[in-house]
Amino acid sequence: MSSAIDQLTESFARFPGIGPRQAKRFVYHLLQQDPAVLANLSQQILKLRKEINRCGRCYRFFSPTENYQEQCDFCRDTSRDAAQLMVVARDTDLDAMHKSHAYDGYYFVLGGLLSLTERHPDPSLRGVQLLARVQADVAAGSLKEIILALSANTEGDHTAEYVESLVSPLTESGQLKLSHLGRGLSTGTELEYSDSATIKSALKNRS
Amino acid sequence: MSSAIDQLTESFARFPGIGPRQAKRFVYHLLQQDPAVLANLSQQILKLRKEINRCGRCYRFFSPTENYQEQCDFCRDTSRDAAQLMVVARDTDLDAMHKSHAYDGYYFVLGGLLSLTERHPDPSLRGVQLLARVQADVAAGSLKEIILALSANTEGDHTAEYVESLVSPLTESGQLKLSHLGRGLSTGTELEYSDSATIKSALKNRS
Repeated sequence: MSSAIDQLTESFARFPGIGPRQAKRFVYHLLQQDPAVLANLSQQILKLRKEINRCGRCYRFFSPTENYQEQCDFCRDTSRDAAQLMVVARDTDLDAMHKSHAYDGYYFVLGGLLSLTERHPDPSLRGVQLLARVQADVAAGSLKEIILALSANTEGDHTAEYVESLVSPLTESGQLKLSHLGRGLSTGTELEYSDSATIKSALKNRS
Repeated sequence: MSSAIDQLTESFARFPGIGPRQAKRFVYHLLQQDPAVLANLSQQILKLRKEINRCGRCYRFFSPTENYQEQCDFCRDTSRDAAQLMVVARDTDLDAMHKSHAYDGYYFVLGGLLSLTERHPDPSLRGVQLLARVQADVAAGSLKEIILALSANTEGDHTAEYVESLVSPLTESGQLKLSHLGRGLSTGTELEYSDSATIKSALKNRS
């Protein structure tokens, strides 16, 4: 039987971006902590799933309150602009967008990006749910525009095409506008080290 | 009150080498796992300190068995060469040395490196314990050599000097030999990209 060190190392090695060596470093770090710190961490992990729900409207993870179990605070915020719906791949992307204070519409977490090698979209991608929501919101007369805030790489582009084809009946009939995040130089980027695709986009989107 | 997501993110951000963004990625990763995976991880963390002891002789972390609570399997292994004691800074260093199958003496985990800016050694460094052990083993006639297996940087050199001064009465009287790991080119290193200190060492230690 493997030791408690090896077992926990294996668990940590399944964390995103963590190899066996760093996983073991985590375990040695924990061994040097106060027992109360370990009890606290153990408890936090245990209650994570109990205290966090996925929002039934935008599918992000959120802390339900007594009165609101099904919808997150963003989706319940009626001061947001109902004409815009931003599609992001993951919760981390939503967090980054929210922190920028640049957007005040609603969100939809797609659940990932479409891999280039797959013929059929990953069933965990919420294409069906997105389409149902968009159809209902357009029918209600509130939604005017979908903003695709996806990664600027081939998987992001592939996913964008998938969403575009999903909502094409609405965009082609002129009921819905579809836009993408602009591409150009990231802040702090030196022109010398930018790739041609970025330079082309920056030139096109010049202001 | 912050949410379960924020609380666990804060805990993970205290892990070595992990910033707040990667910590949050860990939390989202866990939120997508089966509840059984979380229960298991929580349990593994909780039992870590209960099932792992620090060896009373070499100070590494180990899994005690019913019969052996105080000393690890390395220290109880009488087939090892009692004439050699290798001093390492951390458990991870001991693991790396052990995996190389290049050494069959005993170990001592010092507990860290001496920072250059500190006047007095960190009290968590086990200098006193090391000296007591070395004195006892030399007096018993078993120990002949201390091998300092410390990092090849200024903190490692500084720590080496500290250990050298600790055991200097024994080395100066000729009862104990003190050696350092050899320095030179790491396997796979290209000469072009090696710094001068490495090249000097490699030339000196040529074989």
